[in-house]
Amino acid sequence: MKITDLELIRFTYLSRHARDAEGHGHPGPEHEDTATLVHIATDEGVSGYAMGGSPTMLAPARQVLLGEDPLYRERIWQRLRQFQRLYGPPLHDRYIGAIDLALWDIAGKVAGLPVYKLIGAYRDRVPAYASTMCGDDIPGGLDCPAAYADFAEACVAQGYRAFKLHTWMAPLGPDPRHDVAACAAVRERVGPDIDLMLDCHHDYSRTEALYIGRALEELGYHWLEEPMNEHSMSAYVWLTAELDIPVVGPETAGGLFYNRAEWIVNHASDISRYDVNLGGLTPLIKCVHLCEAHGISMEVHGGGHGNLHALGAMSIPGEYYERGLLHPLYDFEAAQPWLASRVDDIDAEGCVTLPQAPGLGLDLDWDYIAAHRV
Amino acid sequence: MKITDLELIRFTYLSRHARDAEGHGHPGPEHEDTATLVHIATDEGVSGYAMGGSPTMLAPARQVLLGEDPLYRERIWQRLRQFQRLYGPPLHDRYIGAIDLALWDIAGKVAGLPVYKLIGAYRDRVPAYASTMCGDDIPGGLDCPAAYADFAEACVAQGYRAFKLHTWMAPLGPDPRHDVAACAAVRERVGPDIDLMLDCHHDYSRTEALYIGRALEELGYHWLEEPMNEHSMSAYVWLTAELDIPVVGPETAGGLFYNRAEWIVNHASDISRYDVNLGGLTPLIKCVHLCEAHGISMEVHGGGHGNLHALGAMSIPGEYYERGLLHPLYDFEAAQPWLASRVDDIDAEGCVTLPQAPGLGLDLDWDYIAAHRV
Repeated sequence: MKITDLELIRFTYLSRHARDAEGHGHPGPEHEDTATLVHIATDEGVSGYAMGGSPTMLAPARQVLLGEDPLYRERIWQRLRQFQRLYGPPLHDRYIGAIDLALWDIAGKVAGLPVYKLIGAYRDRVPAYASTMCGDDIPGGLDCPAAYADFAEACVAQGYRAFKLHTWMAPLGPDPRHDVAACAAVRERVGPDIDLMLDCHHDYSRTEALYIGRALEELGYHWLEEPMNEHSMSAYVWLTAELDIPVVGPETAGGLFYNRAEWIVNHASDISRYDVNLGGLTPLIKCVHLCEAHGISMEVHGGGHGNLHALGAMSIPGEYYERGLLHPLYDFEAAQPWLASRVDDIDAEGCVTLPQAPGLGLDLDWDYIAAHRV
Repeated sequence: MKITDLELIRFTYLSRHARDAEGHGHPGPEHEDTATLVHIATDEGVSGYAMGGSPTMLAPARQVLLGEDPLYRERIWQRLRQFQRLYGPPLHDRYIGAIDLALWDIAGKVAGLPVYKLIGAYRDRVPAYASTMCGDDIPGGLDCPAAYADFAEACVAQGYRAFKLHTWMAPLGPDPRHDVAACAAVRERVGPDIDLMLDCHHDYSRTEALYIGRALEELGYHWLEEPMNEHSMSAYVWLTAELDIPVVGPETAGGLFYNRAEWIVNHASDISRYDVNLGGLTPLIKCVHLCEAHGISMEVHGGGHGNLHALGAMSIPGEYYERGLLHPLYDFEAAQPWLASRVDDIDAEGCVTLPQAPGLGLDLDWDYIAAHRV
């Protein structure tokens, strides 16, 4: 079996997702945006698909992929990683991640199995938490502590048993007291039985992070996420030693699972973190195994097909699927019109069920894509 | 898909494999022995097989397996591990390992893929080293340093590019000077281009182990294996700090991949070690990923189908397939008459080629088994 082509399928869609000055997402006016799908074709007619990729990756990635057997994921991944040393941006971890996911999609289709059963299944349903967009100044949005409480209450009514706040970023924040006020309002509203987490401004000082952490301990929060710049592992070693509340990370720090090993050895967080965007499902599985060997939990960052399949195959460690980002004025369910169905519908108990189609289970609406192809 | 039965298939064969007072294997007189095959049956007619298992495991393992989907390897493995806390001997790591391998065999057959392509292939051929039996006092056997040199020369002529000595155990050893003499004789005979390794008496003192390690450094040996009791990780921390030659381990120390994480964090060896007998292919893969995250090489201990598939899916770390144990007077190729073909024939370059049949590629001779079934 040989890979015959690597291409990008690009198409437009109407989006209501706007980005602020730091890149954080918020509801915004409807506008046309472009989505990208990686397509890996083979000489046996099986195709793999995954969202993501970039035109700049095509030349170096084709050099690795074309003519290669798509079932040689480990060899392909290692070659892409080696190429990355010299072709940094075109073979960014995110793009390698999309390629790796498309290869898993092929493997699942060849095997006739959903990817999590290919890895070795553990569960069919995963509890999800509602993960909010960042704070804003939109009336009816997430513009004050009470607005977070209202939204958390609505999410709990929808079935979620866990809720994570992303609070105010520049220029509306950061403000540790404002963050804590939002956290307190949510706890007061949903009561003690809902798991609550905070992901706040990522550049707080050590002092500010400790203040927030102590407040969350009082409020019985489940974890604290990336309150400081992750480039200082030392700051996280310090904070993790100070706090009882679990510190989760790293999320955005580079270095793939190799760096998670460093954080574990240095006790820089209580719970590790990974995401298919960090090079794909292949390294995500490696990070799960690393964490399990050390008795460290690992929370999967972000949603989508690859992350969900990883969660379906993980036992210890790994608790929640991150569903979102959500906002009272944003129709998350309708945000990806190129999908005939989402992969992560939640049920009345706040859980997401693993898809059973062979491969990743990306349910693409080919009529939509054809009609909007760039 | 459901597991409908877990059974053992036991059959006799004529063996020339004898065990000494410490359990080490040597050539011996022909005698009848019994082999055991684990068989996991499913309601879809697919069966998984692996060598190993014990009657005592059947009751607790059936409680976990029957009615379970065999593709839920991670869930099954974790449940077996949990059962093991209370059912130690019946669910020994070796028996769990055989069950796990049989589940991988099923998965490969369901997928129509050899197991290493299910995991994600890296290579189709793996270099092998000739791994000797322990020293003896058999004329024409491994009874003196020159005998090891003769045998190494014969192995190199057969294609092997690497050779590992197991030297004299009680009551013929241990003797550090005798071990070093054998190592020196082999190096002198095969020249500088063959990788040589030593696995010697496992209860040497620190002083003796250091003496041997220094001598192997002079002789340009590739690694030193388990010269001391592995229950003292501290002894290995000390030895690894003292020596330049890579210390490989742990091999027999318990604790699965969890303990390999401890050895890594404590710098107790230079190269880690795992084996499908330590709970199966599922934890072996976890150990590979653990080691890769830490930039530590990992050598697979022992041969056979499961270990070979792991090596086919491993990139960094993992260099050699261990082929043996071999002896000048022992017909290794004919030692498993229940196999229609061995999985690990070596080619003229000393490499083993991965099997391409779906599953583990265990090529059982069912006529033989039927004729000799107990």
